Amino acid sequence: MKIIINPIGTIHSPYPDPEGVPIQGVFAKNIRGRVEVFPEFAEGLVDLEGFSHIILIYYLHQVKGYALRCKPFLDTQEHGVFATRAPRRPNPIGISVVRLLGINDNILDIEGVDIVEGTPLLDIKPYVSDFDVRKDIKNGWYQHAGNRVQIVADNRFIQTEQKKG
Amino acid sequence: MKIIINPIGTIHSPYPDPEGVPIQGVFAKNIRGRVEVFPEFAEGLVDLEGFSHIILIYYLHQVKGYALRCKPFLDTQEHGVFATRAPRRPNPIGISVVRLLGINDNILDIEGVDIVEGTPLLDIKPYVSDFDVRKDIKNGWYQHAGNRVQIVADNRFIQTEQKKG
Repeated sequence: MKIIINPIGTIHSPYPDPEGVPIQGVFAKNIRGRVEVFPEFAEGLVDLEGFSHIILIYYLHQVKGYALRCKPFLDTQEHGVFATRAPRRPNPIGISVVRLLGINDNILDIEGVDIVEGTPLLDIKPYVSDFDVRKDIKNGWYQHAGNRVQIVADNRFIQTEQKKG
Repeated sequence: MKIIINPIGTIHSPYPDPEGVPIQGVFAKNIRGRVEVFPEFAEGLVDLEGFSHIILIYYLHQVKGYALRCKPFLDTQEHGVFATRAPRRPNPIGISVVRLLGINDNILDIEGVDIVEGTPLLDIKPYVSDFDVRKDIKNGWYQHAGNRVQIVADNRFIQTEQKKG
């Protein structure tokens, strides 16, 4: 079964390349960006402005291939890729919870951006505390990971063909 | 730009049809299901078991077409589709935070299932409180919605061709 997806917009950020991007939105609290929703989908944004946070679902377009085990940025040990948020996944789909600052027509101003410039947007959902906030969380390896200092990405998930010459 | 996605597994649940499915996992706290990850991806599950909750990203395969405005289950008013979690979206991608009960080889036992039987799985991510829990949330129309009684789906998002004869 092959599923065909057409982006509904483009995410704009200060990060032209994967290297240097904050690895999660919590490490990018003051980083602002914009979401450009293609005009034909703008009507779907009605009433989104009442939500303080939104979930962006996007395609990690600069990622090629995947590895089933990897060493994530926040640990010195390898884990299965589904136990990490690393980008080189069988389906390189990313999700980010960002703060919604405002909407003008088809443009969303957002904050907390851990996304590369030009990333294709697949969907937007409102972040709803009743649906998305869980308590009594057990955070697996992350809870005990020793190496938490690296909060921006290096080039470990970038394939050779994507490196700049 | 067309993006091609291949499922990495199948989600199994007690709900053969969209009608009757709890509309969110919080309304399905005791509902158990299973995630079958295709064996070729099972290695990617290493160390996932340490996490109490996981995020499932999946394709709403029974949804056909979309509407940019809709009346969600939890309100009597129309909203833009991106301001709702309704399934008939330009890209019908669903996300659910479910409790992970255990893993046996390539099978995950889960709880809090608001997903239709046979749904194609696109990705699994660990739910990490530092990354996924936000505070000071403004919940938009949901905060003031009058009609919260309907916590299981009806057939409003099912196209005619999918109705049973």
